[in-house]
Amino acid sequence: MDNKLLKLRSILKNISVFESSVGLLYWDQATHMPSGAAKSRAEQLSLLENHIHSLFTCDEVGELLEGLKDYQKTLPEDSDDYCLLRNLGRLYKQKRAVPSDFVKKFSRHVSSSYNAWVKARKENDFSVMVPYLEQTLEYSREWSSFFDGYGHVIDPLIDVHDEGMTFESVSKLFSDLREKLLPLVHAVCEQPEIDNRCLYQYYPAKQQMEFSKHVVKRMGFDFKRGSLDISPHPFMANVACGDIRLTTRVEENRLDECLFSTIHEAGHGMYGQGINRKLVFTPLDKGVSSGVHESQSRLWENIVARSFDFWKYFYSQLKKTFSVQLADITLEDFHRSINKVYKSLIRTDADELTYNLHVIIRFDLEVDLLEGRLAVKDLADAWNARYESDLGVVPSNHSEGVLQDGHWYDWHIGGAFQGYAIGNIASAQIYRSALKANPDIPNQISQGNFKVLHSWLVDNVYSHGSKFSPDNLINRVTGRSLETADYINYLVEKYNVIYPELKWQI
Amino acid sequence: MDNKLLKLRSILKNISVFESSVGLLYWDQATHMPSGAAKSRAEQLSLLENHIHSLFTCDEVGELLEGLKDYQKTLPEDSDDYCLLRNLGRLYKQKRAVPSDFVKKFSRHVSSSYNAWVKARKENDFSVMVPYLEQTLEYSREWSSFFDGYGHVIDPLIDVHDEGMTFESVSKLFSDLREKLLPLVHAVCEQPEIDNRCLYQYYPAKQQMEFSKHVVKRMGFDFKRGSLDISPHPFMANVACGDIRLTTRVEENRLDECLFSTIHEAGHGMYGQGINRKLVFTPLDKGVSSGVHESQSRLWENIVARSFDFWKYFYSQLKKTFSVQLADITLEDFHRSINKVYKSLIRTDADELTYNLHVIIRFDLEVDLLEGRLAVKDLADAWNARYESDLGVVPSNHSEGVLQDGHWYDWHIGGAFQGYAIGNIASAQIYRSALKANPDIPNQISQGNFKVLHSWLVDNVYSHGSKFSPDNLINRVTGRSLETADYINYLVEKYNVIYPELKWQI
Repeated sequence: MDNKLLKLRSILKNISVFESSVGLLYWDQATHMPSGAAKSRAEQLSLLENHIHSLFTCDEVGELLEGLKDYQKTLPEDSDDYCLLRNLGRLYKQKRAVPSDFVKKFSRHVSSSYNAWVKARKENDFSVMVPYLEQTLEYSREWSSFFDGYGHVIDPLIDVHDEGMTFESVSKLFSDLREKLLPLVHAVCEQPEIDNRCLYQYYPAKQQMEFSKHVVKRMGFDFKRGSLDISPHPFMANVACGDIRLTTRVEENRLDECLFSTIHEAGHGMYGQGINRKLVFTPLDKGVSSGVHESQSRLWENIVARSFDFWKYFYSQLKKTFSVQLADITLEDFHRSINKVYKSLIRTDADELTYNLHVIIRFDLEVDLLEGRLAVKDLADAWNARYESDLGVVPSNHSEGVLQDGHWYDWHIGGAFQGYAIGNIASAQIYRSALKANPDIPNQISQGNFKVLHSWLVDNVYSHGSKFSPDNLINRVTGRSLETADYINYLVEKYNVIYPELKWQI
Repeated sequence: MDNKLLKLRSILKNISVFESSVGLLYWDQATHMPSGAAKSRAEQLSLLENHIHSLFTCDEVGELLEGLKDYQKTLPEDSDDYCLLRNLGRLYKQKRAVPSDFVKKFSRHVSSSYNAWVKARKENDFSVMVPYLEQTLEYSREWSSFFDGYGHVIDPLIDVHDEGMTFESVSKLFSDLREKLLPLVHAVCEQPEIDNRCLYQYYPAKQQMEFSKHVVKRMGFDFKRGSLDISPHPFMANVACGDIRLTTRVEENRLDECLFSTIHEAGHGMYGQGINRKLVFTPLDKGVSSGVHESQSRLWENIVARSFDFWKYFYSQLKKTFSVQLADITLEDFHRSINKVYKSLIRTDADELTYNLHVIIRFDLEVDLLEGRLAVKDLADAWNARYESDLGVVPSNHSEGVLQDGHWYDWHIGGAFQGYAIGNIASAQIYRSALKANPDIPNQISQGNFKVLHSWLVDNVYSHGSKFSPDNLINRVTGRSLETADYINYLVEKYNVIYPELKWQI
């Protein structure tokens, strides 16, 4: 038994090292790579990814997993070995299910679809994307068909990103959330508008970067085992155990972009840095799922870093850095400015409250497309209608409408969006457990002390990597499965303070 | 035959892509990697390098090479396929000759030797390195013994870096060179000392980097297919076809370090960028040998960028950038300052003229060690004696003596040094051919026009990658094998101008 496990671990180590290289190649591509290297980089990535795929899906891995089944049964369900074999069994099945011919065909398709989208978006022309999306939709259904016994065509597509979630469970969460959110959003938007012009002044890039770095360092991101660079789209790359690269974006005409993007990515990054080193060189050395990963970035970005307590500590420092720009702005003004709610068209620019509606719209449209109730050619109209009914705004062109996100154009239709809202919901439920265990956390935050919160997250979430399924993890951390109650309570409590006239009752 | 070649090329493409990843990992390690990632990076590198080694040395490659022998015979000797098969046959034989157990044992040894050296150098303590070096010497002889029919124990060690060169040919070049250099060095050092204090003032790092970048861009380094970063030791990493990363070092208390290091690395880099793209994804997509590679960096660094013509164009720009520091310094002063000759202890800081003596000392000591005529325990004394007799200076401690270079402590004894002087010799012989073909080059340089020189080098040297053996290439370019005459002529002519009283006759 020991030999089989050793053999399996040695294959996994190999895979993990190749994955690290891929991680570095992607990070480099977005940060330092000279533009002329794009073509050779694409070749490098595709060759390495094929190599990893073939290492992962080789018969030997299947035979070793099969041979270790009896051993697995003898193990406690929370032991590292049990969890490794469970997780690996799932990944192996998933990767073997899809024929490699299909993978190649699909990769070629999405690559040309993505290139067409870049152009179409620039030209506001949805019509050229219709045939691409129709093909993508067909492929997405076909991909789904490789998996047995699902309840809904979107289930296998969701499961890749958020294990265990289904059309049914996501729909239940989202309809709960939407029902509570829609009236709250409308009520908030009827309140006197917050003046947040202080955020939109000239803020030199260098000082923004330095301040953002200072903040996330204080929060607990370890720069001995990580770094921060600039890239067009902020992201976190887990290059290796002890090597987490963050990137952020700076705009010199606004203050919030760099700051909150950096904090968001640092939330992902601290998750990666907090994984128990025993799990290194295995597939457990990663965050659990899209939703759980997002819960950690949103917990830091929104619950912590948009709180009044947080700025009680940091605002005087921020004001020292930008003394001219913030001369007449009080702590209270600033706190309200970074929490302004407004109905908007672009998901990635949306405030904390309305953001979820953007996600739910996309999820509902995906379901309609996959079920065949909505034709691709009618998608843009359906998009605009939903934005009008839910958010009261209508895109004036497709670039700020159906063409704004890359997700449908560079991968499956279905699966990529739900994690963003699940993350918000989970962040509040997890944070509530942290407060229950350590009620003094907000007070500590107001003194710039993040150690107790950070350690609690390491112990309860980060250290486990992906040992447990998302639902199992959430249950271990919070004592129950995911539900929207804590998140709604958090939002209502927060916006009743930000908008004092609101006095919203749940 | 076609199938076999296709199969071979597909294996080579694979290897090449993995090598690219290794290139990026090394570059990243020296530039952007967080310090905490050192251990996992070492594991990544070792695993990838082992993987590449096993891809390269697998039986299949040998069988394909064997099966293609008849085909090779039908090809013109300058055709890409012929050269590929020739080069590959050589590499395959070289890599297969050394048993993998030996490679592992040796790697472990040099890794601990290197770590011990870092400490020993800091503490000026050569004695702790004696047992390490004795073991290294034994391993170096053993390594050599895996190769048949060599004339001298150092031959196989030289051949890895400088194909075709041997103890005999290197010794002949070096004794020629030393015989001519020693009296010249002494005569130059008796001339009135050049006042080069203008170079040692405060020069802000940012402006140094910008100016250096400007210079190498003008010379022909293509920043769309390359980049420039800072690292403790300047180097060039060939990450992929169309992706050449240079690094340099900046010291704010001197002007020449960043500038000439950047130009030196850009010389290596332009070589990489100039290789014909047809050779991509094969072992031919590299420079020929240590010596030939070095000839290209030294040609640009010394022959071009320390020439009066070069600064006729650039000096006014430099003076605009550093107007305070260079206020009273004329073009002539500056040109003399960057060409000052002085007897010194540290090879990497040495001027163009004495540099060769530093290399020859090391080569001679290597030979003595390998032949058993010098015991490791007496090496430091032998070192000091040679520095005294050749350069008239004695190290006051081992850190500026026998411990100054990493080369003997991190790899074989033998092979790593000779390329530095061969490069100098070759640079002059190659440049002379360029001038013969285009006598107007110096005049063009004085107008900031490097196109003709650059194109000539692309056509005659760069584009061939490592299609030809070094000797074959030098013959194709210059019409004869390597000899010291052109280099000596170049030096004498140059220093007769820099030191007007010298009036040296060959």
